[in-house]
Amino acid sequence: MGPVRLALLAVVALAAAGEAVYIPYNTSAGVVAGKLNVHVVPHTHDDVGWLKTVDQYYVGSNNSIQGACVQNVLDSLIPALLKDENRKFIYVEQAFFQRWWRNQNDMIKDTVKGLISSGRLELINGGMCMHDEATVHYIDMIDQTTLGHKFIKEEFGQIPRIGWQIDPFGHSAVQAYLLGAEVGFDAFYFFRIDYQDRDTRKETKELEVVWRGSKSFGSSADIFAGIFPKNYEPPPGDFYFEVDDDSPVVQDDPLLFDYNVEERVNDFVAAALAQANITRTNHIMFTMGTDFKYQYAESWFRNMDKLIHYVNKDGRINALYSTPSIYTDAKYAANEQWPLKTNDFFPYADNPNAYWTGYFTSRPALKRYVRMMSGYYLAARQLEFFKGKSKSGPTTDYLGDALALAQHHDAVTGTEKQHVANDYAKRLSIGYTRAQELVSTSLACLTELGSKSHCSSPTTKFSQCLLLNITYCPPSQTDFSKGKSLVVLVYNSLGWKREDVLRVPVFSDSIVVHDSEGREVESQLLPIASASLNIRDKHVKAYLGTSPGAKPKFWLAFPVSVPPLGFNTYFVSSMKKSASVSSKSTIYSSQGSENSNLQVGQGNLKLQYNAAGAFSLYSDSRTLIEANFEQKYKYYIGQDGNGSDPQASGAYIFRPNGTVPIKTDSQVPLTVLRGPIVDEVHQQINSWIYQITRVYKGKDYVETEFIVGPVPTDDGNGKEVAAEIVSNMATNKTFYTDSSGRDFIKRIRDYRSEWKIEVHQPIAGNYYPVNLGIYVEDGNKELSVLVDRSIGGSSIKDGQIELMLHRRLLHDDGRGVAEALNETVCLDNQCEGLIVSKRKYYLKIDPQGEGSRWRRTFGQEIYSPLLLAFSEQDGGNWANSHIPKFSAMDPTYSLPDSVALLTLQELEDGSVLLRFAHLYESTRIFQLWQVSTSREYSQTRRLARSLRQAYLQTKSVQPWRRSA
Amino acid sequence: MGPVRLALLAVVALAAAGEAVYIPYNTSAGVVAGKLNVHVVPHTHDDVGWLKTVDQYYVGSNNSIQGACVQNVLDSLIPALLKDENRKFIYVEQAFFQRWWRNQNDMIKDTVKGLISSGRLELINGGMCMHDEATVHYIDMIDQTTLGHKFIKEEFGQIPRIGWQIDPFGHSAVQAYLLGAEVGFDAFYFFRIDYQDRDTRKETKELEVVWRGSKSFGSSADIFAGIFPKNYEPPPGDFYFEVDDDSPVVQDDPLLFDYNVEERVNDFVAAALAQANITRTNHIMFTMGTDFKYQYAESWFRNMDKLIHYVNKDGRINALYSTPSIYTDAKYAANEQWPLKTNDFFPYADNPNAYWTGYFTSRPALKRYVRMMSGYYLAARQLEFFKGKSKSGPTTDYLGDALALAQHHDAVTGTEKQHVANDYAKRLSIGYTRAQELVSTSLACLTELGSKSHCSSPTTKFSQCLLLNITYCPPSQTDFSKGKSLVVLVYNSLGWKREDVLRVPVFSDSIVVHDSEGREVESQLLPIASASLNIRDKHVKAYLGTSPGAKPKFWLAFPVSVPPLGFNTYFVSSMKKSASVSSKSTIYSSQGSENSNLQVGQGNLKLQYNAAGAFSLYSDSRTLIEANFEQKYKYYIGQDGNGSDPQASGAYIFRPNGTVPIKTDSQVPLTVLRGPIVDEVHQQINSWIYQITRVYKGKDYVETEFIVGPVPTDDGNGKEVAAEIVSNMATNKTFYTDSSGRDFIKRIRDYRSEWKIEVHQPIAGNYYPVNLGIYVEDGNKELSVLVDRSIGGSSIKDGQIELMLHRRLLHDDGRGVAEALNETVCLDNQCEGLIVSKRKYYLKIDPQGEGSRWRRTFGQEIYSPLLLAFSEQDGGNWANSHIPKFSAMDPTYSLPDSVALLTLQELEDGSVLLRFAHLYESTRIFQLWQVSTSREYSQTRRLARSLRQAYLQTKSVQPWRRSA
Repeated sequence: MGPVRLALLAVVALAAAGEAVYIPYNTSAGVVAGKLNVHVVPHTHDDVGWLKTVDQYYVGSNNSIQGACVQNVLDSLIPALLKDENRKFIYVEQAFFQRWWRNQNDMIKDTVKGLISSGRLELINGGMCMHDEATVHYIDMIDQTTLGHKFIKEEFGQIPRIGWQIDPFGHSAVQAYLLGAEVGFDAFYFFRIDYQDRDTRKETKELEVVWRGSKSFGSSADIFAGIFPKNYEPPPGDFYFEVDDDSPVVQDDPLLFDYNVEERVNDFVAAALAQANITRTNHIMFTMGTDFKYQYAESWFRNMDKLIHYVNKDGRINALYSTPSIYTDAKYAANEQWPLKTNDFFPYADNPNAYWTGYFTSRPALKRYVRMMSGYYLAARQLEFFKGKSKSGPTTDYLGDALALAQHHDAVTGTEKQHVANDYAKRLSIGYTRAQELVSTSLACLTELGSKSHCSSPTTKFSQCLLLNITYCPPSQTDFSKGKSLVVLVYNSLGWKREDVLRVPVFSDSIVVHDSEGREVESQLLPIASASLNIRDKHVKAYLGTSPGAKPKFWLAFPVSVPPLGFNTYFVSSMKKSASVSSKSTIYSSQGSENSNLQVGQGNLKLQYNAAGAFSLYSDSRTLIEANFEQKYKYYIGQDGNGSDPQASGAYIFRPNGTVPIKTDSQVPLTVLRGPIVDEVHQQINSWIYQITRVYKGKDYVETEFIVGPVPTDDGNGKEVAAEIVSNMATNKTFYTDSSGRDFIKRIRDYRSEWKIEVHQPIAGNYYPVNLGIYVEDGNKELSVLVDRSIGGSSIKDGQIELMLHRRLLHDDGRGVAEALNETVCLDNQCEGLIVSKRKYYLKIDPQGEGSRWRRTFGQEIYSPLLLAFSEQDGGNWANSHIPKFSAMDPTYSLPDSVALLTLQELEDGSVLLRFAHLYESTRIFQLWQVSTSREYSQTRRLARSLRQAYLQTKSVQPWRRSA
Repeated sequence: MGPVRLALLAVVALAAAGEAVYIPYNTSAGVVAGKLNVHVVPHTHDDVGWLKTVDQYYVGSNNSIQGACVQNVLDSLIPALLKDENRKFIYVEQAFFQRWWRNQNDMIKDTVKGLISSGRLELINGGMCMHDEATVHYIDMIDQTTLGHKFIKEEFGQIPRIGWQIDPFGHSAVQAYLLGAEVGFDAFYFFRIDYQDRDTRKETKELEVVWRGSKSFGSSADIFAGIFPKNYEPPPGDFYFEVDDDSPVVQDDPLLFDYNVEERVNDFVAAALAQANITRTNHIMFTMGTDFKYQYAESWFRNMDKLIHYVNKDGRINALYSTPSIYTDAKYAANEQWPLKTNDFFPYADNPNAYWTGYFTSRPALKRYVRMMSGYYLAARQLEFFKGKSKSGPTTDYLGDALALAQHHDAVTGTEKQHVANDYAKRLSIGYTRAQELVSTSLACLTELGSKSHCSSPTTKFSQCLLLNITYCPPSQTDFSKGKSLVVLVYNSLGWKREDVLRVPVFSDSIVVHDSEGREVESQLLPIASASLNIRDKHVKAYLGTSPGAKPKFWLAFPVSVPPLGFNTYFVSSMKKSASVSSKSTIYSSQGSENSNLQVGQGNLKLQYNAAGAFSLYSDSRTLIEANFEQKYKYYIGQDGNGSDPQASGAYIFRPNGTVPIKTDSQVPLTVLRGPIVDEVHQQINSWIYQITRVYKGKDYVETEFIVGPVPTDDGNGKEVAAEIVSNMATNKTFYTDSSGRDFIKRIRDYRSEWKIEVHQPIAGNYYPVNLGIYVEDGNKELSVLVDRSIGGSSIKDGQIELMLHRRLLHDDGRGVAEALNETVCLDNQCEGLIVSKRKYYLKIDPQGEGSRWRRTFGQEIYSPLLLAFSEQDGGNWANSHIPKFSAMDPTYSLPDSVALLTLQELEDGSVLLRFAHLYESTRIFQLWQVSTSREYSQTRRLARSLRQAYLQTKSVQPWRRSA
């Protein structure tokens, strides 16, 4: 062959460099005046528990249930943000962020600090979780928000500017004014409002408003509130860019097939124009993310970079990386007039037959557990402060964390999977165990004579009885025959003196009670019904895994008096029969006496029953109120989803398919227990509802205790059980329910004050959350009912109040949880429906205008019950070695009953956080105070407000303008 | 209240720092002597097309089909590798890597260069794709590998050390010795071998072997081959760590629930010990990845970091980040004796009824298209070199890229989804269009008298006819009546002189052909059957979207002679009837003459038919061979998957459920065309099979052309159509098929030379890939059949050869593609089954021992057919302005017919790559040469070998040891 010839033929060609198609995207756009500005807000929404537990979500385990790993989100976010300085991100849930932060080394921490200080990463909302707003008490909202904000302030020197409650199922007025404006937020964004309300607002461009949540605060607590047009996801038009999402990615490499820049730009512009059409000002927000997205953040940013680059090149509109803060500033700068919104956004419906009012009651036992722990946490922090916070010993921190998580909008709401509900309960249990140890130690320190300020190992042992309500309290099994007596220390976490009646299970019928000064205290023995003892045995085994031991025979009831922020001590011992002992209750059965009426009540308040036991005449000799009311039960049949609209009743949604009144079996007699302290009326309503109505000699309200369950489902129907209080009051469709445990808001049946409602669900659509209470009035009197946990309630007929006590349902309601709300308790592999036992509501009838004091002051006492600790004394020498009575306050002073002590807590640096709440409305003086005895950072809230003021001042101190 | 008292009670507590749980993982382990070393090899397997197209996989579009985005893999890999210097990764598919590389900026490129040079990122295998080994010709393997390796060498100065064919469905000997050892690889890893073979090897610890793929090369081309014990995924025990995978992540944060370090360490150790139990030496490899994984690389590395850290802390075994290179070095250093493996790993079965031998034939039209383009690419590169590679003009690059992709193990294999098959075809079409333009220009330059070395715009226009096989060739519609004639330029890309017979469709029956020196050339006109014209019309419309225009009446056949690496020119024109014109064929029909035998063949070779037309007597008067053979058709019914083993026949798997012989309709006569050039026997076998058998006067083989399709499925059965050549030779179960178009390998029916087979599928289990040919021998003679594309073949009975021509199936075979292999062609919204038309096989019977020359030399001519280009001359003045004949080689020299010119190509820098192949076996002198006229880098292969030698030398020049 001829290589020479080949070489001759060869021609010199320039080396063809591989065609490079690196495109530097221009993402530097800010706001451009005169154009429609699309604020592209990258975000993730990370539930701190829902289908998986919070830890499973964090580490990404249990992915067969849901592919979600928050560690991925935060890990992948950092390089993505570093890649382009214009990229921005907001992060919300501090429970996750703190878990992640703990795992990072200093280099990454420094990087993140830089990103946060430059505003590329902004921590907004800032609580440990995105708390629910219907089933959460405002004190818990404050606590969980504080935990998050404190961390942000300490680590990053920042205070979140924006409320971002994008997922909770309706929104409360307290959230707007207290957890919004008063927290120092400049704006508050969310999405879930009634679909009819949303439709109206879209037409009138009223999705963005100035929300005035508080009548008392008025305009000073206004907040700018933005409601998203559709949801918190990217706009319509396929803009989901998660790994494996199937939205069309922006394909701008000319060397590859399927180049689609023009189509994608057109899609984006179309989405923007559609949203602009229902929005005031030329600023709109695209919420670029959704649940647990940004597992690999770059996959989103890559596409958003391109969209911003090509959309701005196109020029019709202006797109920019933004945050809700930047968006809020732009909205503010636009100097627009905004519509005014008052009251709240309850109830929430996303479809005509889909009112999210079931979750107000779902998992009533969990709701109660959370509320018990909240009150305990409040008291325990005080005792932690008294003892001195210890780094090594038990603290309240775990309980605080557990409670913070429990406020999540899929926690206390009851809308999580069962295993996740168990996880929240487990955390509360661990937290309680630690706090209980601390409480016992602190109380021992406080009681031990001569104990030093640093009291770490006192000799006195106190124990506590979490299951006291089901008569399980081992310390009360003290063998009095050997000269021992039971020491009952009673702690009052409120700032005013409390009088109450305690109940302790005892074994003997020969009991005497003495107070701390050795005086005998009048007491009463009430036989414990065998039904109660069965529940006790079953639940102690199920919850503690132990046998409960001997069965007590009586409840011992005796009145106590406790100083503000302090304790008193009582002694229970045995007495020879002949001596002055606790009164046994007299027992009376209605059986065979059908024609005779029956009256209970040893004090001012009396209830007179008719023979059937349902109808009562309420009379108060002090207020001269006299009124009839009837206590009834009924259940709604939960829609099973087989109708033309397949919406079932479930964990979220209440969709009744018929109402069944529960008739009391007239064969079962009414049992009345009477005594010097309290009268009780026991009624077995049916085989699975038991009711006790109490009238205390020294109290002016009726206490109703009920046991509901196991709710039978053998007829194939899920059931939603409600208690009714029926009066003949002319209430004109009107009733009042509290907002997150504070302000009462007027509700009118089948009516919304700010938009016209078309009624499809006359029952579910009139349910409202009840955290504190509900009342009706007829111009003459007020009938108030207070509750011991979050619950759903309504007034479905004039004169009537109803409370949804329990829900057992057989179908999922299609909102993601994918489980029927069918709670069971299992023992020895046998499961039965959950019993909601020994819980209470409180009823009072006041002259018109006089109910609020009881509702707010006694309501606070329900939240903060007396804390009991038990010890034993041998031979009556307690007083020799212990302080029996204590108050942290000056003995000459007590807080007025309008002022609640919310927080007394020692912080890590030794400073003290003291927080008060004014309980009444329309009193402008004190709404919420907080005081720190030392360092600056504990004044988070106050600082936030100051900063907000400063921020407003830079904008000519002009508040948000609302339409006339 | 008493703040003073409060203050007194406050105690000083140290600020409790948030508990930090940052754990620096120790991942620095190297190999530890005396311990079981687990080489943790992070990898991803990224098909360059399968369920989605290569570009869709790259950018992550069309994710509804499969969530896969290679851009994510590579983007996320970089920060993950930077995070810990011990982390390692291998990347394989250069088609993806190059796409990604083009998109990167210099900073990232520099980073990646650093990672590669430090060995933290290693590019292995290194071809554009992971080519198939059954349906791919070795020349295409070389080309696609070169494209990838050249890039790696140029950009990173590296040469891949490791063959990594982990997914192809069986493995060829040529791959082992030529694309393995000779490429310079130190080892070769894969997983798919027969399940029975694997089971045996696990027992005998023979999964790792020294593979001697070439009898000719012997030990000098041995390669260490590692077969994975199960698949190329993580070991059993749940070690998948992709975003959203549900393996348990390693949860080592003591502050969170579900801490599981101990369990996960135990899982890992258990997996390691199990694998060690079937592996020689104390080194095992964990392939940590699978298809399209590492979308977010950190999610894998995070868990692998922890596993390595905690496993090594545990201490029972040693885990290390590794690569196949490090693993190979460790294996080598172990100085172990390895079993010897010869031949290949075909066929592959993963279950008793699941032989992956269907894909040898699946998509026969695509397979043919690829093969046509390969030959064209070979020639076009030569012409590109002659003309001089131009940066601006059309190049062969696109065709080269398209062909490289087409070699992928889900491309030419036919195992991709239909839309992906379309994508490969589209790329070939674009590549062909560009290359065709280049070829036309280059030929014009070469023919134009006085054209300069830089010839960019010659005036002569050549066109080419891709659809010539279906009689569509617009240039042949020249209107000869106006004194014009058709110029046929014939290019020969081989290094030896070629004599062949061309066929051009013409409209006139009065035609004369002249050669470049003006001499008249004998020619023959063969009437075109109307069936052929119908196919022409239909396919031109379907493929080109245009109407094919006037119908030609004849095939004009004439002999041509072309110098090596050059061209010759022929002229077709019209002639007055009276003059010397092309001979019309005489036509003879067998109808009505059932008793008379019939003979065709004008030269040495004659075929004598019996009346039924099936049985032939083959006689060659030169070799004195005489033999009977019968040409038959049959089809297998494809298993529909409804049996007890639900395995269906599909794109991958051949599972016949009965054999149906196709009986020729005896009513349809056999038609014989005779003439001076060629005799043809036309047979309509049935309504959808048409066969033409040709005997050329000047050739010593039989050419059989067939049209198969549309295969009917109206009986509900999928069908797999095979041609049979049945002789009475005593072949003793033995036959020979080529390995990737080179060496022939002995096959024995129902037998494997190195392990004992249990036969479950006596047909499918005896199928082998045929790229070049198949032959049988009886000690006396050899019956060889050569093919024009990759196809499946076997000898199911002694004396018989069968070729699977077409497959049309109605069920998916459950290997992921999720589509039935049911190819259709649609026209005007009417679809019918794909017709495989005008394709050929070649048959020759030689005296024993004399067949190889024809098989290899003529086989090379089949791969590299003469390239035709057409022009028009007006008035016979072509010779005045054009060079009619050309050879790039010295006129006194021709390559011997044992040496094929594989590559003559100008590279980007102007250097030239020249590659030869020795075609015969057991001749050690030249196997594969390549020569570069200038710069060093084009000598990739040679360099690779030198480097490999150097590498071996550092290890005392000791080759892999094999067991005695």
